Amino acid sequence: MDTENFVSGPCPVARGLARVGDAWSMLILRDASQGLTRFDQFRKSLGIAPTILTRRLAALTEDGLLEKRRYSDHPPRDEYILTPAGRDFLPVLVMIAHWARRHHGEGKMTRLVDVEQGTDVQPLLVDAVTGAEIGTRPLTMVPPTAD
Amino acid sequence: MDTENFVSGPCPVARGLARVGDAWSMLILRDASQGLTRFDQFRKSLGIAPTILTRRLAALTEDGLLEKRRYSDHPPRDEYILTPAGRDFLPVLVMIAHWARRHHGEGKMTRLVDVEQGTDVQPLLVDAVTGAEIGTRPLTMVPPTAD
Repeated sequence: MDTENFVSGPCPVARGLARVGDAWSMLILRDASQGLTRFDQFRKSLGIAPTILTRRLAALTEDGLLEKRRYSDHPPRDEYILTPAGRDFLPVLVMIAHWARRHHGEGKMTRLVDVEQGTDVQPLLVDAVTGAEIGTRPLTMVPPTAD
Repeated sequence: MDTENFVSGPCPVARGLARVGDAWSMLILRDASQGLTRFDQFRKSLGIAPTILTRRLAALTEDGLLEKRRYSDHPPRDEYILTPAGRDFLPVLVMIAHWARRHHGEGKMTRLVDVEQGTDVQPLLVDAVTGAEIGTRPLTMVPPTAD
C-alpha cells in the first residue's frame, strides 16, 4: 500500500488506516483494552504468529498507540500499555462490533456492558453540533482549501 | 489470519474485522460513500493495483457491503453500490477520521461537513441507554453464556 500518500495526505480516514488499518493491530488494541499487556498474552489470545505480533506491537508503539514498559530485567521483558491515543481509538472498535452485531450477529456473541448498570451498551454516533444521529442528515467531505 | 475463528467466533470486533478489516476495503467504502461506483474510479482514486481491487470488490460484494449492478452489456461493465449493511459501516470510518484528526491532524485535511448547516461534524459516540459518552464510564466485554 502506498502509505506515504495516505499517511500525510488530506484524508483523515486514510491517515488513520495508514497507522491502524489492519485487523491484527485492531485486535491487539481490543485485547489491550481488556487488560492484556504482555507478548505471550496477546499471542495466546489471538493465535498470531510471533513474528507478526512483534512487528505489529512495534508499529503500534512507534505510532503512539501503545507504550512499552520494561517490567523485568532478568530476563528482559516488556509490557505494552495503551496510551491516551490508543484509548481514543477504542470507539472505532465499538462501532465495528456494533456493525457486526447487526449484520453478522448469528450465534452467541460477546456483549459490551456498562459495569455499574449491567445494561448492554447501545452505541449511538451523533453529530454534537446538530444533535442528529450520523447518517440521518446529508454529510459531505470537503477537500482542504489551497492557500 | 485464522479468519475462521474470527468470522464466527464470539467476538463482534473480530467478526467485523474478518470481513472489513483491511485498509483497502475501508477506503473503497469511503469512496463508495462519496459516489464512486466503477472499477476505474476506485482504481484512480486509490492508486490500487487492479488485481487487489478486483479481489477486494469481490469480497465486499460477497460479504454483503456492496452490490454489483451491470450498467453496460457491450462491453460488460458493472458498478458497485453500497448496500444498507455497507452504509451502516460508514460510522466506523467517521470514527477513524475523528481519531486521526485529533492525533495525526497536522497539515491540511479533508473536513466532514453537514450539508444544510455548513458546520463541521463533531462525532460523539454515546451509549443510548445511559446517555454517557463511551469512554467516560467503565465498560466490560462479557463472554456469551454457555447453554
